[in-house]
Amino acid sequence: MTNLTLTTFDWVPEMPRGFVRDLRVRWALEEAALPYRVASVPFGPRDAAHFAHQPFGQVPWLTDGDLSIFESGAILLHLGELSARLMPTDPRGRSEAKEWVFAALNSVEMPALPWTMFKFTGSDDGSPAVKFVDDFLKLRLKHMETVLAGREWLAGSFSVADILMSDVLRVVDKFDGLSEHPACRNYVARATARPTFAKAHADQMAHFAAADQLRRAD
Amino acid sequence: MTNLTLTTFDWVPEMPRGFVRDLRVRWALEEAALPYRVASVPFGPRDAAHFAHQPFGQVPWLTDGDLSIFESGAILLHLGELSARLMPTDPRGRSEAKEWVFAALNSVEMPALPWTMFKFTGSDDGSPAVKFVDDFLKLRLKHMETVLAGREWLAGSFSVADILMSDVLRVVDKFDGLSEHPACRNYVARATARPTFAKAHADQMAHFAAADQLRRAD
Repeated sequence: MTNLTLTTFDWVPEMPRGFVRDLRVRWALEEAALPYRVASVPFGPRDAAHFAHQPFGQVPWLTDGDLSIFESGAILLHLGELSARLMPTDPRGRSEAKEWVFAALNSVEMPALPWTMFKFTGSDDGSPAVKFVDDFLKLRLKHMETVLAGREWLAGSFSVADILMSDVLRVVDKFDGLSEHPACRNYVARATARPTFAKAHADQMAHFAAADQLRRAD
Repeated sequence: MTNLTLTTFDWVPEMPRGFVRDLRVRWALEEAALPYRVASVPFGPRDAAHFAHQPFGQVPWLTDGDLSIFESGAILLHLGELSARLMPTDPRGRSEAKEWVFAALNSVEMPALPWTMFKFTGSDDGSPAVKFVDDFLKLRLKHMETVLAGREWLAGSFSVADILMSDVLRVVDKFDGLSEHPACRNYVARATARPTFAKAHADQMAHFAAADQLRRAD
């Protein structure tokens, strides 16, 4: 029996909605069909209790009984231990899922996040730094294209690795960064076509929309 | 009984020596006092066998019997399962070690690696993209400073999380990025003062120096 609570911000601006990282956790929980509740912390000034759960003052974190876990990668590995729908049960499949979890977060998101932020903030000015990150991302995408042209999911069956990798690539796709990488784009489309993604996404959008209504009512 | 082989490049240029990621794996293996051998692949053109082990054409990877694992984070988690010297044995301690492994690679290295590369390539020209990454790193270091001012190691006792976090911060320190973060700097000094780090570092340097000698003999 699990007792899971996901904590996210009470409100965020329009732009990041649909991309706040609690979505990765919601998606995994929906895939596993694990019951959970959602709690909120202020997007405004963050207090000591927030930092005690998330030392960078970010979200999400997950509590499982008296265990509190931050970092979406760590949370998804934890959930992977709870459900065969999130992680293969054979040793080789488990190992593959774990290495692709790290590949998503340390090899692909490392250039993808700054690349996206440069686009978003309009810092995408062709400077050497922008070009470095652009080349770095393209190199990673080139290899991911080869990988994804040859398989439906990263570790045999759908797993936490696919939640993370497709979520990382989804943001690149939003800024049209996958136009020359059809296998990556198809993979994002395939992953986000799952009803569990739709549910997680709708729930995040509704969570922040509800906060808008409360703000208007104040 | 384990049968561990670490694969790294046969040679790299001077600059990255001492920082190639096989060092993280060597360090963990030395901490755990696990026997291992080191194999090499060409730094030059990478063949299909290389990509079969490491889909991005990088190093390191570790084989444990017939299991082959890439991504330094995944390798260190695997080794953490093999030795209490690398991961606490109580559930809370294990969970903490894992979340800090992800924090090192996804929260701190994400800005630290591009920041370092901008310094290294001289792209550090004050452009908006450089400033974005600089501010991103400073924000992470500010929070790490608070964390590290209050504890010796991240998860109670020394663990794989400390190998990764100190290795990530060590590169920032090399480019004088920790001058305003004494707790981070002291943490790097404390971690790298371990004889196991010295052994891993010396072994990596010797490995590449031996390749120089072979090249000269050709």
